Amino acid sequence: MPARRRSPGVDPGFQTLAELEARAVARWSPALRGYVEGGAGEERTLSRNRTAFAEAVVYPRVLRGVASVDPRTTLLGRPVAVPFFVSPMAYHGAIHADGETAIAAAASEAGVLAAFGTLSTRSLEEIGRASGPGLRWFQLYHQADEAVERALLDRAAAAGFSAIAVTVDVPVLGVRDRQAQGGFAIDRSVPVGTARGVRPPARSPSDDHGVFRLPAEASATWEWLDRLRQLTRLPLVVKGILTPADARRCAEHGAQGIVVSNHGGRQLDGAPATLDVLPEIARAVGDRLEVYLDGGVRRGVDVLVALARGARAVGVGRPFLWALGVGGRSGVARYLTLLKLDLAAAMALTGCRTVAEITPDVSPLPR
Amino acid sequence: MPARRRSPGVDPGFQTLAELEARAVARWSPALRGYVEGGAGEERTLSRNRTAFAEAVVYPRVLRGVASVDPRTTLLGRPVAVPFFVSPMAYHGAIHADGETAIAAAASEAGVLAAFGTLSTRSLEEIGRASGPGLRWFQLYHQADEAVERALLDRAAAAGFSAIAVTVDVPVLGVRDRQAQGGFAIDRSVPVGTARGVRPPARSPSDDHGVFRLPAEASATWEWLDRLRQLTRLPLVVKGILTPADARRCAEHGAQGIVVSNHGGRQLDGAPATLDVLPEIARAVGDRLEVYLDGGVRRGVDVLVALARGARAVGVGRPFLWALGVGGRSGVARYLTLLKLDLAAAMALTGCRTVAEITPDVSPLPR
Amino acid sequence: MPARRRSPGVDPGFQTLAELEARAVARWSPALRGYVEGGAGEERTLSRNRTAFAEAVVYPRVLRGVASVDPRTTLLGRPVAVPFFVSPMAYHGAIHADGETAIAAAASEAGVLAAFGTLSTRSLEEIGRASGPGLRWFQLYHQADEAVERALLDRAAAAGFSAIAVTVDVPVLGVRDRQAQGGFAIDRSVPVGTARGVRPPARSPSDDHGVFRLPAEASATWEWLDRLRQLTRLPLVVKGILTPADARRCAEHGAQGIVVSNHGGRQLDGAPATLDVLPEIARAVGDRLEVYLDGGVRRGVDVLVALARGARAVGVGRPFLWALGVGGRSGVARYLTLLKLDLAAAMALTGCRTVAEITPDVSPLPR
Amino acid sequence: MPARRRSPGVDPGFQTLAELEARAVARWSPALRGYVEGGAGEERTLSRNRTAFAEAVVYPRVLRGVASVDPRTTLLGRPVAVPFFVSPMAYHGAIHADGETAIAAAASEAGVLAAFGTLSTRSLEEIGRASGPGLRWFQLYHQADEAVERALLDRAAAAGFSAIAVTVDVPVLGVRDRQAQGGFAIDRSVPVGTARGVRPPARSPSDDHGVFRLPAEASATWEWLDRLRQLTRLPLVVKGILTPADARRCAEHGAQGIVVSNHGGRQLDGAPATLDVLPEIARAVGDRLEVYLDGGVRRGVDVLVALARGARAVGVGRPFLWALGVGGRSGVARYLTLLKLDLAAAMALTGCRTVAEITPDVSPLPR
Repeated sequence: MPARRRSPGVDPGFQTLAELEARAVARWSPALRGYVEGGAGEERTLSRNRTAFAEAVVYPRVLRGVASVDPRTTLLGRPVAVPFFVSPMAYHGAIHADGETAIAAAASEAGVLAAFGTLSTRSLEEIGRASGPGLRWFQLYHQADEAVERALLDRAAAAGFSAIAVTVDVPVLGVRDRQAQGGFAIDRSVPVGTARGVRPPARSPSDDHGVFRLPAEASATWEWLDRLRQLTRLPLVVKGILTPADARRCAEHGAQGIVVSNHGGRQLDGAPATLDVLPEIARAVGDRLEVYLDGGVRRGVDVLVALARGARAVGVGRPFLWALGVGGRSGVARYLTLLKLDLAAAMALTGCRTVAEITPDVSPLPR
Repeated sequence: MPARRRSPGVDPGFQTLAELEARAVARWSPALRGYVEGGAGEERTLSRNRTAFAEAVVYPRVLRGVASVDPRTTLLGRPVAVPFFVSPMAYHGAIHADGETAIAAAASEAGVLAAFGTLSTRSLEEIGRASGPGLRWFQLYHQADEAVERALLDRAAAAGFSAIAVTVDVPVLGVRDRQAQGGFAIDRSVPVGTARGVRPPARSPSDDHGVFRLPAEASATWEWLDRLRQLTRLPLVVKGILTPADARRCAEHGAQGIVVSNHGGRQLDGAPATLDVLPEIARAVGDRLEVYLDGGVRRGVDVLVALARGARAVGVGRPFLWALGVGGRSGVARYLTLLKLDLAAAMALTGCRTVAEITPDVSPLPR
Repeated sequence: MPARRRSPGVDPGFQTLAELEARAVARWSPALRGYVEGGAGEERTLSRNRTAFAEAVVYPRVLRGVASVDPRTTLLGRPVAVPFFVSPMAYHGAIHADGETAIAAAASEAGVLAAFGTLSTRSLEEIGRASGPGLRWFQLYHQADEAVERALLDRAAAAGFSAIAVTVDVPVLGVRDRQAQGGFAIDRSVPVGTARGVRPPARSPSDDHGVFRLPAEASATWEWLDRLRQLTRLPLVVKGILTPADARRCAEHGAQGIVVSNHGGRQLDGAPATLDVLPEIARAVGDRLEVYLDGGVRRGVDVLVALARGARAVGVGRPFLWALGVGGRSGVARYLTLLKLDLAAAMALTGCRTVAEITPDVSPLPR
Repeated sequence: MPARRRSPGVDPGFQTLAELEARAVARWSPALRGYVEGGAGEERTLSRNRTAFAEAVVYPRVLRGVASVDPRTTLLGRPVAVPFFVSPMAYHGAIHADGETAIAAAASEAGVLAAFGTLSTRSLEEIGRASGPGLRWFQLYHQADEAVERALLDRAAAAGFSAIAVTVDVPVLGVRDRQAQGGFAIDRSVPVGTARGVRPPARSPSDDHGVFRLPAEASATWEWLDRLRQLTRLPLVVKGILTPADARRCAEHGAQGIVVSNHGGRQLDGAPATLDVLPEIARAVGDRLEVYLDGGVRRGVDVLVALARGARAVGVGRPFLWALGVGGRSGVARYLTLLKLDLAAAMALTGCRTVAEITPDVSPLPR
């Protein structure tokens, strides 16, 4: 047997996800670490997301002739290399000078969908240029001023974003103890670059004689979703759904997709693991819209499990920030390669030659 | 995004509950730490209380327009700002020179019900003055001498206490290993200030030729509850109920409320988590009396869970002693603010604009 | 409130069981520690015994007038102060110079049944004299030579032992890793004092061309039990039963009691927690014989749980060795006092004034 | 009682499995440690294998007269001393200069079946000579070149191997993080000695415009199994089965045995514990073929549990590498003795005088 081979052209900087995370956080300030790594409250939900995948059982199926494994799929009709994507996050500029453009370029090159947020440090146009032919979505936070929303949606369309991920689980920021303890602050050197006038979600309600008042951003209702449909031709994907009832309403209000998400455990501590609620939600909506999931996805086999249980694709978040921090665009590219290979191996080992073959019996629910 | 904001007027001394506890216990003697933090026996019940909340699942409901969140409710007909209250405890003077008056003043100012115990270090009258217009309850331990009880009840009514929390789970003190190991002792500088003649619960039975004898305080029966009703016009709330059968008897004997409580895990080690027995108890008594709960409540979402599962309000204990120790009245005020904001956020994230909207589907029982 | 009281006449050497254990093992050699504390194999069963009690739920019942609590009961018709007893063990002389006589004297004084083993370091006669009027049982290992058994049984009867606990779960010694690692050895200074000619259980089988041979001691069958009944008038209590089938056979073969026991986790690693199998066994034999249990009992509430689930009494083992090591007879007396008070408190807190009131609803099985 | 005896002729170097492992890995390089000890991914499956055995409950049955215990059985009609065998592994030469021959000799002497792999560092002929009269199996990885396979099978038959263990769970190597982190590499001083031209499984797929290509070795299908049956008269045992469906196909394709295996947790992280899927698989195939299991077997009682739940025999892996590393042939011999005695003790304690008496009631499934 030859000496250990390294994939050609891949910087041997990190071999495993654990190493990537360790190296990333080692160089971060406590504040940045608290911001990226932390979740809401006691991090019950943050922990549940991972535990649900760790407990999932996957069954190998053997002798199925897996000389080729094809992980390609489509998302809202657009081809992608793999059924995972970069979840929308915020403030990439706090992690690497290239900010969102590094992720945009690496994802585009890899044929992977990437989503970028309202609170990006680079403008939509910069991200669009970096992404080039790549598939990209724009994540929208409700804005009190509809003109701001309209401008964002128009610019997103013009900059080549092909869908709007509408975040609905942040009427107010979750109470994030680890972040509060670390004292994370965005200073002027890391501005929100998306647009002037954009307002981030409210940090906490204010007490008005015993009634807690939230900014207008928190007043969003299902009618707002209807209005958004009027404001853009881009398909809407509602992000932050955890119940079948809300999933059905998304379909009724014309969304073309939902992300089963608890915001990476950063919003309502106590919310269920996304994997745990996925099957019932997928059953509830059937093929009326596409169902995605994020929260706790780290390994190729996690992608497989989510697909077996009803997701069309899954979002991955924090690992891309680790990779961005460790190596900018090339770090992200390397992580993408690792995750692709991990998925390909998981498919081969379960006898799934294509995404369509990732059927429920590959990872049935516990009885 | 602007630099991290702090709520105006709030001392930035502690940002999170974990920090509060750490700072409080760091300055305490091992004896005081053992007394406050410890539970009975191997602390199985102490741990269960927290675990039950940690395992509860809460479901966000989105796009419900939560620009205002109103946590106000009534307890025995009296308005309060929030559905949580300060549980009755003892010996506040061992923790801060202001003792119970600091909590009374802060809770009153915040519109929060506070309960004070038979073993208070300040007199009922002092506490009443500090509370002013605030809602306050008096916690009563059975006294062998009915005259002592009568005097306490009369003074409580005169001092503006509006209900009597009758503790029934301490016929004898629980066997508290951590406290025994720490060697906690109340010396003469921290007297029971409530009243002369008050006797604390028996520390342990004495062996009388093989039969263990307890002081008369342990002889309380349901008839004692009937007698109490004759001794005061104040409503009785029975504290320390863990079974539907006992809850029903409370209703039959004229109590107007019960506290589902295991005395913070300090009495019978092995008793169930209060959250685990709440739903069956709430079903058993229906609307014949108000059902409260204490034990392990730490976060806003815990309040929400208890309400979703049948409680009208919940008591919080040890955190108020931490806050008292760290900052006296202003420490307590700060913790009250944190907990209120935590609750308001939890309500907003679950789409509950009022307490009435905290319905069972927000946190259904595990199947 | 007065300063912390200590029970009069009780050496304040240790306040809690945890402190007792820590102090005992701190002075022991690794070999002795491994022998006493260790279990078989990976100590799965040792751990299960404790976990089963730690997970048991106990329900307080309030306002039942518990001014007196009476833990007395009878075992095979003989009155005892409490429904717990000293389990038979071995080699007490390795722990304290007074060996078994210290336990015999302390248990007798406290009105507590004590059982002493075939592998005692003191003779049956010495133990009998130390026990005086105390209730005592003799534990018998099968002996290849019936004459040795006969002599032991006769001497036990003559020395005032009132029942024979017949150990049936040691055809061969369990594979005790921690003991093997510690290298425990009984040297000539700690002889088996019970009788000349007594043979301990075989340490391991010998390989005879692929078939493993055990000494004649391992050949015991149910017929041996019948023969034992002919050899003594003392009632037989079969120790080491873990299945309903074997329990029924004990009744059929004339035993008057059984001990549901896995030998303190020292024999078959993988055997169930005794508490877990108790209810089914108790149901299987009904009142045809008395059912006892040992394994993992440490607290008063553990005694209560076992009685609620079908045991008439429970044996306690290792804690008596800790107490013997720390303080000889007075150490044992002190531990007996602590455990009695712990039981009395548990009874008071569950509203059980007598042992008869420890009914199944006090600690129902999990559903 | 005499001083602690050691079995005659057994080197007292290690007394327990834990000591053996600790001593072995202490002398290994991080790379070798990562290779041997590690599993795939986050080692969920590696951990499950052990947990499943740790949670199995085993019931003693008493007074059954176990003066002799006979663990002998047959595998594919050939007599063996015990129902456990040495699982096929790889690269023994990296651990001890004697490589596979040390295990072959020790297993043969002990009457224990040993399996040797395609990636052995010694040739089939050398292993055969070292094994002598001992029962041995040859493990085959699919080779792209059928001529290579044919040559291996012919040489295996000629060298006295009596069955072929066909590995089917390695179309591609699992993603082994711990191994990757350690940097394990086989250099030229540790060649694969089995045969020239042998190719190890592919380390990872290569990306071919989005489709991942695996070497021809990964293309194996059930038809390949049929072809193998034509290439050799030796019985085929398919290794790496985890579902009833695949087990049934093995029977349909003429295999005479299967090994329920997840490759020691080294292939698909997320695969179930082998013990958990064993009963359903055993029921599915009935007596159409022999069912073996490996993965997590460490103790005699583990062997017993697997047999009670449907296995005819079980494979043991890593412990043999520890023993090989610590003491070469004599280390392996010593471990074999320990495991045999452990099994004999477990049989005696459950009243099983023969393998046939290891019935399901000895270790029933949890309800």
